[in-house]
Amino acid sequence: MEQARGWWMEPSPASTVVAVDSSTVLGSAKMGPNRPGRGAHVATASFMVDPRHGGRGVGRALGEYVVDWARTTGYRSIQFNAVVETNQVAVRLWRSLGFDVLATVPEAFDHPQHGLVGLHVMFLDLKGA
Amino acid sequence: MEQARGWWMEPSPASTVVAVDSSTVLGSAKMGPNRPGRGAHVATASFMVDPRHGGRGVGRALGEYVVDWARTTGYRSIQFNAVVETNQVAVRLWRSLGFDVLATVPEAFDHPQHGLVGLHVMFLDLKGA
Repeated sequence: MEQARGWWMEPSPASTVVAVDSSTVLGSAKMGPNRPGRGAHVATASFMVDPRHGGRGVGRALGEYVVDWARTTGYRSIQFNAVVETNQVAVRLWRSLGFDVLATVPEAFDHPQHGLVGLHVMFLDLKGA
Repeated sequence: MEQARGWWMEPSPASTVVAVDSSTVLGSAKMGPNRPGRGAHVATASFMVDPRHGGRGVGRALGEYVVDWARTTGYRSIQFNAVVETNQVAVRLWRSLGFDVLATVPEAFDHPQHGLVGLHVMFLDLKGA
């Protein structure tokens, strides 16, 4: 548990939230600057959803929270560095929130079922006209 | 100095080298897996060259070392996550070593002279036919 704290809970200005159903944790997101210093106006985030609670909109709720958080905090954009291309649920979800695939890094993820698959770099402009 | 050690010198399997001219450190590169776990077959690296020793091929020597190191260590590819698009010296150098620009994240770097400029994701396949 203390190990998980260090791995998932980052110091400020990063932030971590959980999605709960009464006292059950359904998932979590962590968010913060994608880079330090002169790249710190681009946000990033990571997500976990308990697979026993998939299909209930947990990922969408966390994703919408992150977009609102980034916009409110004053970030110019959000970058996801590594979305597994075969994870259609995630790719569709991020697209539905306005993210585009900027690039796919070929064979960058060793998927337990599919072998080497690409990782999408996904991007949402928050300041665009 | 101890702070620099923690920031630049990463634990194994990462590696750090310096370029020297007799006892003068001209530059340094650190290299290692770009991601943990199922993405650890893609390498990445960061570079510093003392600006007082620019134009002497220090960056090229470090870049060639990193490519050789990654190939020898068994990485499938190398990904640079954030090459400043206005840094023509770096972009040209990485292209000359075989890297391609996979994508440019728009306005992701707040350049002290040029304002908001893009960050290239650059990629070199080490296993291609």
